[in-house]
Amino acid sequence: MISREEIAGYFKKLQLQICAAIEQEDGGAAFQSDVWDRPGGGGGITRVLQNGNVIEKGGVNFSAVHGEMNAAVNENLGTKADAFFATGVSIVMHPSNPFVPIIHMNVRYFEMDNGQWWFGGGIDLTPHYINEDEAKWFHQQLKEVCDRHDENHYPRFRDWAETYFYNRHRKQPRGIGGIFFDRLTAGDEGSKGTLFQFVKEVGETFAPVYTHLMHLNKNKPYNDANKQWQLVRRGHYVEFNLVYDRGTKFGLETDGRVESILMSLPLQAGWPYNFQPIAGSDEAKTKEWLQSNHRWL
Amino acid sequence: MISREEIAGYFKKLQLQICAAIEQEDGGAAFQSDVWDRPGGGGGITRVLQNGNVIEKGGVNFSAVHGEMNAAVNENLGTKADAFFATGVSIVMHPSNPFVPIIHMNVRYFEMDNGQWWFGGGIDLTPHYINEDEAKWFHQQLKEVCDRHDENHYPRFRDWAETYFYNRHRKQPRGIGGIFFDRLTAGDEGSKGTLFQFVKEVGETFAPVYTHLMHLNKNKPYNDANKQWQLVRRGHYVEFNLVYDRGTKFGLETDGRVESILMSLPLQAGWPYNFQPIAGSDEAKTKEWLQSNHRWL
Repeated sequence: MISREEIAGYFKKLQLQICAAIEQEDGGAAFQSDVWDRPGGGGGITRVLQNGNVIEKGGVNFSAVHGEMNAAVNENLGTKADAFFATGVSIVMHPSNPFVPIIHMNVRYFEMDNGQWWFGGGIDLTPHYINEDEAKWFHQQLKEVCDRHDENHYPRFRDWAETYFYNRHRKQPRGIGGIFFDRLTAGDEGSKGTLFQFVKEVGETFAPVYTHLMHLNKNKPYNDANKQWQLVRRGHYVEFNLVYDRGTKFGLETDGRVESILMSLPLQAGWPYNFQPIAGSDEAKTKEWLQSNHRWL
Repeated sequence: MISREEIAGYFKKLQLQICAAIEQEDGGAAFQSDVWDRPGGGGGITRVLQNGNVIEKGGVNFSAVHGEMNAAVNENLGTKADAFFATGVSIVMHPSNPFVPIIHMNVRYFEMDNGQWWFGGGIDLTPHYINEDEAKWFHQQLKEVCDRHDENHYPRFRDWAETYFYNRHRKQPRGIGGIFFDRLTAGDEGSKGTLFQFVKEVGETFAPVYTHLMHLNKNKPYNDANKQWQLVRRGHYVEFNLVYDRGTKFGLETDGRVESILMSLPLQAGWPYNFQPIAGSDEAKTKEWLQSNHRWL
């Protein structure tokens, strides 16, 4: 049986591999690390890169925490347990160049003292400007990882991402989606070993996919209007994370380390009142894509 | 008996009076107005001033809406009613100069078809830099309004503001507090007439108090470090509004007009990772004041 230590150990290495790949493609700054303890049990390592050549602010967080389950958490999860262990890697990258997309990735494992356990995770892309070819290519990469394991994974986890990464009050997805999955446990979907293998492959997809998108776009020229739009798109990203994102809410409610939870927020964001893109502009085109709920594959 | 039309009519005039006073002190820009209808019933007028001499982004919203109460709203409010009417004025001002504070004010009236009604409201101040004399003066102005009606009002409503305007995950208030009250209805606290009079006086306190604070501080010189700190303080303001503010949550959940609800968010805000003020700096002093839960009177 795969132990929690083996999974946490893998996630810790994955964090380092991803940071190394991002640093190499960025070429301008290094991740700073903060090791932290959680008062209730366990801790983590938060690695943040700021003011790089490509990444304006990006965070890669590893944590392995444990503690008591309280009544509210049990009710929320539909479980009955006294203690939990959770480990995972969470990433958000906010680039300087508005033509490089924002990306998010999370892989996680959760277990309780009653023997229940599950894996969860996902990757989704939030371009400031949607590029059709890159959107298709991004989804193709995720589909390939999924298809290696189960041909139902991609359609199911893509749909789940469409539901999850949705800015309800704006009536639009936060970006072009990706995959999202939760509570994968032994059964029809595989053994603990095969599910762990799937989660590993999702985690290992992140660096090659995102460094490719950085590479393609990092030298594209941009103007003030592009930066203004980036601030608006980032504002919507902040709204999603603070209003809907379950990990953020869970972290803030359970007295997690605020700076590690909110590393997902950009260095700057903006809320100009009632901003409307000019008809026919690239900004308007992206807004139309978002509102059309387009399927990229 | 004071009618809903009389109250809504008063709030509509109050909105105009406040906009006129802010415009005069700002001297650089005019409020733009958007009249909107609410699909479920009623509507409002959102007035926003952007890129003024003093105010970078400020909104004054009036609304008078009505509709059906659903089960979730009844459960939330502990009421049993089929229909509601709500009217109010909501304000948030984000100045350019970091030495001018952010301010928020709200006055509102709510009634249901079962005969229940109440007033609510509040004013609170969020200085980027806390100035002790101005903090005391601000609370003194609110205390005077309260004391004209009931000497229990100020201590009670100040405590309520301390509880309400609190950024729990940051373990600090969003600013120096003020007053907050809700569900004031006929009984020990007065008649509908005296409560309406109190709410009017709270509303009419806003313009003289805030234009005075604008006037005192609008020409103070500031540097890049001051602007950086302003972005950080605004970031915390965004967190409060999106994570805790009941009006914002209610508006977003009930499919309200997004741009009117989120006019409270600043033109720009920032989240530098783990920002720590330099020991002994003015920024550090403000952080200490916030964390000390200081009482200003």
